[in-house]
Amino acid sequence: MNAVVLKGKLTGVGTGPGDPELLTLKAARTISEADVIAFFCKKGSTGNGRAIVGAHVRPGTLELPLVYPVTTETSKDEAEYRGPISDFFDRSAEEIAAYLDAGKNVAVLSEGDPLFYGSYMHLHVRLASRYPAEVVAGVTAMSGCWSMTGLPLVQGDDILSVLPGTLAEEKLAERLANTDGAVIMKVGRNLPKIRRALASVGKLSGALYVERGTMANGAAQKLEERDESPAPYFSIVLVPGWKARPGDDR
Amino acid sequence: MNAVVLKGKLTGVGTGPGDPELLTLKAARTISEADVIAFFCKKGSTGNGRAIVGAHVRPGTLELPLVYPVTTETSKDEAEYRGPISDFFDRSAEEIAAYLDAGKNVAVLSEGDPLFYGSYMHLHVRLASRYPAEVVAGVTAMSGCWSMTGLPLVQGDDILSVLPGTLAEEKLAERLANTDGAVIMKVGRNLPKIRRALASVGKLSGALYVERGTMANGAAQKLEERDESPAPYFSIVLVPGWKARPGDDR
Ligand SMILES: C[S@@+](CC[C@H](N)C(=O)[O-])C[C@H]1O[C@@H](n2cnc3c(N)ncnc32)[C@H](O)[C@@H]1O
Ligand SMILES: C[S@@+](CC[C@H](N)C(=O)[O-])C[C@H]1O[C@@H](n2cnc3c(N)ncnc32)[C@H](O)[C@@H]1O
Repeated sequence: MNAVVLKGKLTGVGTGPGDPELLTLKAARTISEADVIAFFCKKGSTGNGRAIVGAHVRPGTLELPLVYPVTTETSKDEAEYRGPISDFFDRSAEEIAAYLDAGKNVAVLSEGDPLFYGSYMHLHVRLASRYPAEVVAGVTAMSGCWSMTGLPLVQGDDILSVLPGTLAEEKLAERLANTDGAVIMKVGRNLPKIRRALASVGKLSGALYVERGTMANGAAQKLEERDESPAPYFSIVLVPGWKARPGDDR
Repeated sequence: MNAVVLKGKLTGVGTGPGDPELLTLKAARTISEADVIAFFCKKGSTGNGRAIVGAHVRPGTLELPLVYPVTTETSKDEAEYRGPISDFFDRSAEEIAAYLDAGKNVAVLSEGDPLFYGSYMHLHVRLASRYPAEVVAGVTAMSGCWSMTGLPLVQGDDILSVLPGTLAEEKLAERLANTDGAVIMKVGRNLPKIRRALASVGKLSGALYVERGTMANGAAQKLEERDESPAPYFSIVLVPGWKARPGDDR
């Protein structure tokens, strides 16, 4: 008699912006029910997603760290990064597939929302056609950050642009000029450029800088007042774009 | 002896896209601890936010429905809507203020994320300077919808544009041509226009239509295949914009 092993299920689980209480009920349940939890991390660190969900991991759960290949200062745009990172996602997908083939349910932790600029999507596109797969939406970093500061960026018929801070200065300025609200992700070493781009279109004074939003040591300030030291990985710029506030426009 | 009544706290609570399990742990706690829960609704309905959080409301909690003024088919752009809606937010803020003055903590339910195109922001800007106030970020409708369909819209250095379906056709087309990923909110009766705008810039075939995303009766299909009947209030269009998928580009 051959025992048929049912394939396990892959779930991409959004862990939210940082505050462990901003996990969804569904994320907490999925993590506590998983046979395996996988998470991206850098060498020598377990990563932020794993820390956020600590309270929900059952003792005995298998843990599968997916350690990013060591990169020097190459940008993700550069061709020399593409091959290794693509191979890394291939390999990671196959590691997960081995557990799924053995009938284990695998939860892949993903900071913020899994499909919003997250690494999880690279596993999803490789595995979702081969295994039962589900994505548990999460609170994005931008929502966490504007909620923490109480700053509404858009309302009514406003347009919101989400821009990577890696864009060239002129392109960034053009995009900022041509939107209502804007969110600039991937700030890091792009901070001086972002500031210049905002200033050039007259939008610097309203912009906020938020680092480690909703985390224990999170902080926000006017971007104008932020010093020139490099921003940490977990930092974002918020540009409000209300055309008119009801009540202001009377 | 005069008893000093401490002011209550205002909390805008994101209730997520529809699935009651996509509430955050913090939202569930805030709702269960509130003295008063307030929520926007139409006449004759308690609204979706109130339905989502049902399991977390303590018996005996005061409920404050904020009933939108009856409008005929005026668009929110139109000047004749502005006065009444602004008065409505003023009145709603004062109703809430009365509870806060009496030392009651008030949780205002807000579908999705409170500060992302939500009515809550109009209360926040009226009250947050006068009372202790906090915003609990929520999962947005767009995150819920792209997660439900498993469709990643943006990665790496992509630009995401969030566009209201109320924009004029030419403007919509221009914006759609000039972005990587896009989300179109407020679909409703704008569906035929949205479809034309997408077709005119060659992006119709990739677009998905999602209605009641993450709700019990949610559904998704290719926008091309959606019939011409008007879309419900809870509907959205997702336009993927990956420049290159790692693995596809080799
Ligand atoms: C690769 S993206 C991942 C985004 C995530 N999937 C989401 O849903 O928000 C990483 C970027 O998110 C932003 N970010 C993530 N968490 C943050 C936080 N707690 N505070 C500020 N920015 C954050 C930073 O701009 C960072 O460069
Ligand atoms: C006033 S906006 C509120 C957005 C909300 N605050 C959020 O964070 O997503 C309402 C629009 O959100 C979209 N929407 C909200 N819930 C949805 C759902 N479950 N499925 C599809 N679209 C939804 C629709 O496009 C609708 O016109």
